[in-house]
Order: sequence, then C-alpha cells, then structure tokens
Amino acid sequence: MSIAQVLYNFTAEPGNNELSVREGETLTILNRTVGGGWIEAQNSRGQTGLVPEDYLQVSTVRSVGWFCVQSVTESNELGDVIYMDKAAVKIIFNLSAEAVEDDDGEWDDDWDDQSVSSYHGNNQVDEDTGASGRSTYGPSVKISRNKFPFSKGPNPEVFLLAKPPSNSRDRLPVYMAEVGPVWLYPTSPLDCVIADPKKESKLYGLKSFIEYQVTPNTTNRPVNHRYKHFDWLYERLMAKFGSALPIPSLPDKQVTGRFEEDFIRMRMEQLQAWMSRMCRHPVVSQSEVFQLFLAYKDEKEWKAGKRTAEKDEMVGPIIFSLIEPEAAELDAAQVEHRCEHYSRFTKSMDEGVRELLNVGHTHWKRCTGPLPKEYERIGRAFRNLSTVFNSSKYPGEETLTDALTAAGKTYEEIAHIIKQQPQNDLHFLLETNSEYKGLLGCFPEIIAVHKAAVEKVKEAERLVSAGKISNSDRKCMNHRISCMSYSLQAEMNHFHSNRIYDYTRVMQLYLERQVIFYQQIADKLRAALSQFTTL
Amino acid sequence: MSIAQVLYNFTAEPGNNELSVREGETLTILNRTVGGGWIEAQNSRGQTGLVPEDYLQVSTVRSVGWFCVQSVTESNELGDVIYMDKAAVKIIFNLSAEAVEDDDGEWDDDWDDQSVSSYHGNNQVDEDTGASGRSTYGPSVKISRNKFPFSKGPNPEVFLLAKPPSNSRDRLPVYMAEVGPVWLYPTSPLDCVIADPKKESKLYGLKSFIEYQVTPNTTNRPVNHRYKHFDWLYERLMAKFGSALPIPSLPDKQVTGRFEEDFIRMRMEQLQAWMSRMCRHPVVSQSEVFQLFLAYKDEKEWKAGKRTAEKDEMVGPIIFSLIEPEAAELDAAQVEHRCEHYSRFTKSMDEGVRELLNVGHTHWKRCTGPLPKEYERIGRAFRNLSTVFNSSKYPGEETLTDALTAAGKTYEEIAHIIKQQPQNDLHFLLETNSEYKGLLGCFPEIIAVHKAAVEKVKEAERLVSAGKISNSDRKCMNHRISCMSYSLQAEMNHFHSNRIYDYTRVMQLYLERQVIFYQQIADKLRAALSQFTTL
Repeated sequence: MSIAQVLYNFTAEPGNNELSVREGETLTILNRTVGGGWIEAQNSRGQTGLVPEDYLQVSTVRSVGWFCVQSVTESNELGDVIYMDKAAVKIIFNLSAEAVEDDDGEWDDDWDDQSVSSYHGNNQVDEDTGASGRSTYGPSVKISRNKFPFSKGPNPEVFLLAKPPSNSRDRLPVYMAEVGPVWLYPTSPLDCVIADPKKESKLYGLKSFIEYQVTPNTTNRPVNHRYKHFDWLYERLMAKFGSALPIPSLPDKQVTGRFEEDFIRMRMEQLQAWMSRMCRHPVVSQSEVFQLFLAYKDEKEWKAGKRTAEKDEMVGPIIFSLIEPEAAELDAAQVEHRCEHYSRFTKSMDEGVRELLNVGHTHWKRCTGPLPKEYERIGRAFRNLSTVFNSSKYPGEETLTDALTAAGKTYEEIAHIIKQQPQNDLHFLLETNSEYKGLLGCFPEIIAVHKAAVEKVKEAERLVSAGKISNSDRKCMNHRISCMSYSLQAEMNHFHSNRIYDYTRVMQLYLERQVIFYQQIADKLRAALSQFTTL
Repeated sequence: MSIAQVLYNFTAEPGNNELSVREGETLTILNRTVGGGWIEAQNSRGQTGLVPEDYLQVSTVRSVGWFCVQSVTESNELGDVIYMDKAAVKIIFNLSAEAVEDDDGEWDDDWDDQSVSSYHGNNQVDEDTGASGRSTYGPSVKISRNKFPFSKGPNPEVFLLAKPPSNSRDRLPVYMAEVGPVWLYPTSPLDCVIADPKKESKLYGLKSFIEYQVTPNTTNRPVNHRYKHFDWLYERLMAKFGSALPIPSLPDKQVTGRFEEDFIRMRMEQLQAWMSRMCRHPVVSQSEVFQLFLAYKDEKEWKAGKRTAEKDEMVGPIIFSLIEPEAAELDAAQVEHRCEHYSRFTKSMDEGVRELLNVGHTHWKRCTGPLPKEYERIGRAFRNLSTVFNSSKYPGEETLTDALTAAGKTYEEIAHIIKQQPQNDLHFLLETNSEYKGLLGCFPEIIAVHKAAVEKVKEAERLVSAGKISNSDRKCMNHRISCMSYSLQAEMNHFHSNRIYDYTRVMQLYLERQVIFYQQIADKLRAALSQFTTL
C-alpha cells in the first residue's frame, strides 16, 4: 500500500475529478499511472480524486521486509533515518551475503516490462530531504537493493582513512579550465539512439516484455535491452558513482494499460533522455559498466559482465580515491565554502524548478480542460446564432450567417489547437525541468557526503591535538578532502554547462512553438474576419 | 429586500469569491452593483458570494404597496399574474388619479443620480416570460409607474373596437419594400452624441446629479439632460409605443461608489447606445415626445412639454390605429402564421444571445482572473530561475539569464494584456448582445398583444354567427388586425436590418481586436525568443 503526506494545500477545480487536500493530511494512493503529473488518491473520509504529484510526498511501505534503522553504523554521524531493505540489514548484521544474491536472483524475473509486479511500488522510497523526488513523469530516487552498506549515505571516512586503491586503471583526472575544475571530456562525445521497441516473450509466451534497440554512435551497432537491463545499469551506476555524481532515476516502471502504445512511446522517450544524459557525462560514459551495457552481445556474455560489475569494489565514497586533480591542494575552509555555495544553489534551483513544474501542470490542465471547452462554447454560440439568423427568412443575410458560421468553426478549431498545444511545447519544458528535478534531487546526498567529510576533517584537527591521530594521517585527510572538493567542483561545472545548454535549447523550443501557436490563432481569426463584408 | 430564484446550477470557482448555487434555490441579493454581470448574494445557509446575473431571476418585492393582481381586468384574457404598484391599483379601483400624480411628483426628486434611493430596486420586476429581462450591464424591463391601466399588456380590443383616432397627424405609414412591409424612413438619419458629463447640484448643494450633454445631428445644438430626464423619456416611449415596438430599458440606476468616474463613463456609454438605437428607429425618432427631448431649452419649456406629452391619449394598443399600410389587407390566418414565426424567431434568438452572454461572462472572468494569474506565475518562475542561474557564479551565462529574464517579463506583460483584453473586444460583443437581450425581452409582450388580437378576431367569427356583433364590426376588426400585422412586420424588418448591421459590425470589431491581441502576443514572444542565442 502506498500512502502520501500532503505537502501543500490544493483546492480542486470543480468538474475536473480533483480532490481538495490540506497540508499535513495523509492520503491513500489509488493510481500513480494516470499521467500528466497527477495521482489518484483517497482521503480519510473516503473521497477520491486527482491530486498534483508535486503536492504529495509519497511513502511506500512494504508490509514486511523493511526496517527503519536509526544510526545503525557508528559512522552515520548525521543520525539520519535510513530505510533499508532486508538484504542491507542482513549485511550490516553480518549475515550471509550469498542469501542477498539469491534474493536478487528471484526478483529478477519479476522485472519484465509486461508483468504486473510493482517493483517500484514496493521498493521505492521518497526520502525526507524534500529535494529528492519523483519527477513529473515518473522517475524518483530509489534505494539500491543490493548495495553495500557503505555504498550510499554520508559515510566519508571509508574514503578519508582507507588505503589508496590497489590499481588506478579507473583514475578520474580533474583539469583546470577557464571555468575552474573540469572532468576529462572525451574528444568525440558519446551518444546513443533508442528506437524500435519490440514486444518479445520468453518461457513459451508466458512472459512478455519490451525490448528496445540501443545504438551507440561509437560502434553504430544496435544492441537490444529490456527495461530490467536499464534498471540494472542504473543500480550499478548509483552504487558506484552515487556519492559523487547525480545519477537520475529511470522512468518509473508502470503496469501497461489501455494506452499501451502511448505508454511505450513515452517510456522510450524518457529512456532516451536518461541515456543521452548518461552518455554526456564523461565519468559515467567512460565507466566499464556503462560500456558493458552498450557492448551487449548475447545473454551469456551479458551475465558474465554483470557478475564482474557486481563484484566491483570501487563503489561508494571510495570512488573519490580515483580523483586526480592537476591543481593545488585546497584547504578545508575553502572546501566548506564551496560546498555551502553549491548547497544553496542546488536548493534554490530545486525550488525554482518545482515552482515552474507546478505552474506548468496547472497551466497544462487549464489548456487541456476548461479553456478549450470555453472556446468550443464560444464557437458553438456563434454557430447557433448563425442558425437562428438563418431562420429569419429575411433576405440577403447569407454573408452574415456564413461568416458567423465560419467564425464559430474557427473558435472550435482554436479550441482544438489549444487542447493539443501543451503536448507541443509545454511538454518539453516540463520534461527538461523534470529531468533537472531528478538531478537536483541527487545533490543533497552528494553534498551531505562532503559536509560529513568536512566535519571529519575538523574533528581530525582536534584529534591531532589530543594525540589520537598522527599528523601524517591528518595530512592525508586534507589531501583527500581536497580531491573530494575538486570532484564536486568538476561535477558542478559539468552540471552548469549542461544546464545552460539544456535550458537555452528548451526555452528556444518552447518559445518557437508558442510563437507558432499564437501566430496560427491570429491567422485563423484574420481569415474568419475577412468573411465579414464591411457594410 | 430583493430576492432571486436560481435558474441554473452554478459551481463556484475556488478563490474567486463565488457562491455555488442550485437550480430552484432562493437567494437574498446583497449587491447588484458589483458589475461585470455578477451579483452578490446570500443563500439560506448564510453563505455569501458572487453569482452570475444570468443564472438568477431577481424578484423585487416592495414591502408595502405592491399587490399581486390576477386578471383584474376583464380584458386580460391570458390570466397573467401582474405585479402593479399602488398607483396603478388605485387607478383600477377608480381612486383619484390626482393622488397618483402627487406620488409621482414626490418620487421625482429622488431620481437624482447621486441619491441613494434605489428606485429600480423597488420597482423593477422581472416578469415570468423568461425572455424579458435584465441585460448584462443592467437594463431590464420595468413596469411604468404612471401608465394607464391599458397602456401595456395584452389588451387589444381597446384598439380593435375603439373609434378611429380624431386626428391623424401622427399617422404611421407602412410601405412595401423588397423585404416586405417597412416603416417610412427619414431621408437623413437622426443621430445624437452624448458627451461631457458634468456634476451639477441644486438645493444649495444638498442634492447633486450628473448632467449629460446631448447633441442631435439635426440641430447640432447641445442640450443638457439628467438621468431622470432619460428615464422620463423611456417611460413615455414605453407607454406610447410599448405595445408595438420594443423600447429597451435604460441602464440601471445605480448608487455610485468608489469608481465614480468609471461608473459615469459606463453609464454614458450605455445611454449613448440607447439613444442611438432610439434615433435609428423611424417611428420613435420622429415622435413628438422624442423631439421634445432633443429640443430642450429651459426647465420651464421642458415642464410644459412634459405636461403635454403626459396628456397624450394616443398610447398603448390604440397606437395601431395610426398604422396606414399601402398593401392589401391580410387575413387572420396569415397574421397568426407571421406572429408564430416571429415568436419562434425571437425566442430562439433570445436563447442564442443568452448562451453567448453566459459563455462570454465565463470567459471574461477567466481572462481577467485565473488565466493572467497563471501567466504571471509562469513569468515569475522564469525570472526566478534566471535569478538562481545568476547566482551560480558560472562564467558566461549572461546570455541565458538575460534572455530568461526577458522571457519572464514577456509572460508578465502577456498576463497584463490578457487581463485588459476583454475590455477591448469582449466588452463590445457583450454590450451588443445585452442590447439585443433587452430588445428581445420586449417582444414576448408585443407578440402577446398580437396573439390576443388574433384570438379576439377568431372569437368575433363566432360572435357574428351568434348574432352578437355585426358583420361590419367584424370587417373593421379584420382591417385592424391586418394593420397590426403590418406594424409587426415592419418592426421585424426594422429589427432584422438593424440586427444584420449590428452583428456584422460587432463581429468585425471583435475579430479585428482578437487578431491584434493574438498577433501582439506572437510578436512579443518572437522578440523574447530572439534573445536566446542558438548554441
């Protein structure tokens, strides 16, 4: 059962099947797949209706198998409440890791696109950060099921005090550019095209699923992947890079309904957006696991590759040990300052993006609901009047009645244009902002890791005075927190340059189509006007 | 106290200070002067809010002095329920007519534009015809206070059996044109301009009122009139021509509030529309009483003219005796057929006009309320995002942030344009339709007079057979009902030609301004788009 807390008051617009809700109220989720940023919910009085997704904080509680663990590990200094699954808890309490793998294996078969198992429905948790979260069209932050206990969450001393990694094949150089620290970008950017979704089946047709064709521009060789493969890739990227880079969630797994084709088209569009973003990331796109995904040959090789990837120990905060900045070491105060700045920025942008999404959804609803209905009524009123005038039997009013009918039809056409328009322009503005909401939702955790590391380094100063750690240990920590800061700065610069590109592009697209929209209406009305002969 | 019956269900839009009401509910009117087609009302549960005027049937009950008289006169064959004021009842029961005149004289002083006496509030009755009625911006059918008992209402035998008029100075010829019977139109059409409203006072400043300057194109000599003069003119025209011609009501008398200047401007605009329509009517504009109004010199001459006009006995159905058709006499069946046709037409048009007014008001509210608010929010969201982006300290994003700010401002400007637009286009469409609603509201009575006459003539056939009336009386009745039908046809043809002119003109104006509106938005967005530099 999914429940949700209401974050803001929402007043239902009459006749739109909406539900008025008040801040703090608890709702039962009936249907998350209605689309367009709406959720069907029921309140405590049994009333049901649609509520904007962004007004709710959805908590999914698995009836068994979930534990609320407060500060289970000594290292969790922030005292966060973390929801973990059985498997994670098993590891913490030194239970067999083999059992976890088996669990995973069992779930695996339920991930088929066509099955009704609601994986996301059961395992998805919207955390308390407020900033993490479910994007407009589905994706939200999920907790990795088979992650190691230190693969996520503020646990920086794993890196700060760990031994340097044995091999540095995967080293992540950070260069100094005009804008500051940047990742090493490949000379030819990677991209891929997702196309040609096909319904496939296995187990003699008992299970069916959708297979997408993924074609990287590097090889130009299409590979086939199911949603569950994308999901596996997401889990691995999250485990490996989640402490340092925002890995946005995949579009939600949903039970396909009547609108199967629309659903597949939308899912593919969202997978494409996700893949393009991953391809554009120099660290992610060049990682072994990502390359494995793009090089898929057959099930056997894929399974072998998966096993290797799942054994990768270079995951979680330890990833920072791969950072190799070319610039001078930063002091802790500088690191703290930059971290604060990024924290403020991502928080503000998250708020800005949410507000745009909120008004966008309201506008979407008005443009597809009451507004075109009103234009239709205006058009019908003109046409009716024309019919009445026609019944007058008064000679010589054909010009007026014809023109009035044409004006009526024009307003009915305008109603239709208005209704279709959001899909043409607002859709892309909202999709981009949803993507950014997803990305921004990852930053609180990345920043929390840094903040925790900053605190550790501050504490180290005191521990040196008290003679509890050595000076060389402290120097090592200083070096490593400097690396973390370079990583964060390189990532922020990557984020900024992408943001500028994405927002410029989507605003251009939005305004271009808005211009066409209004111009089209003006032209139609001009044609209608020309039918009225000046008396 | 004014109460109202709810005619149709209305669902309040949240946050707009509206009141949801159900068909059949009774409301108490709190304020009729809120404007824009809205009335403030209270329901039986004490909830208050705005309700669209057109959804209500307002009944004004004078606490004392009103009687409900059912078929008080033998001649009221239709058994209508008529509300009459004390004065009218006094006349019916043969009380002194002098007392009535005195009454009238007393009221007179309360008609000042600035006084708070709510004349219309007390005397206005929306009749049960459903078609009569209050127009968008105020006017409604009123019952004349000092009319003779036979001056209005279906009472045709006054004419059918009356002696021919002693003088025929006022004769009303009906000619045959291509379109059928038409009135005699003057060679140069009369028009007048109402301008320059001035606040005047009398009784040493104790009473103040607005004086309007009325300049007819015939004399080009401005004359000054107060609202109460217009009101007197309306009453006289109603008494004289109300059985034959639609005399639309004046704009409602209203207590002036804070928006005095707006109110005066609107009042003047409506008086102008009313006067122009009266000027365009060949029968009304050439009548003695109308000419008296335009020839006003001083208070003394005006009062003398008023006394003469008030003694005019050529009022009510007797007016039909002035009709002089040039064409052959029609038989009763033809008259009945035409009458039915006009009845259906005016009823259908009334419904069409009401529907257009209803959707127009809804649209007005959306365009001045939620829609611009949404555009403002979109604009603000863009500007906020620009501010956030600006705080990134990432170099070289001024182009984006400047363009995003400009886009935000553009949407805020669009919000403003949207908000102002109804005043530029919808206003005229609604005003014209309100005028027509007012005119159409007069037809049920005009048609009822004809129907009653048709019934009388049918009855006459039987009475001749029974030897109760003479054959020559019946011939006389046939001649006279033929005259009535020519009058009705001439009036319908006048109505149709004006209707074609008015609707063509107003649709041209509406569409022209709608084109400019959408074109302006398209151009603004194009300018905003040009600020985004293609990457």
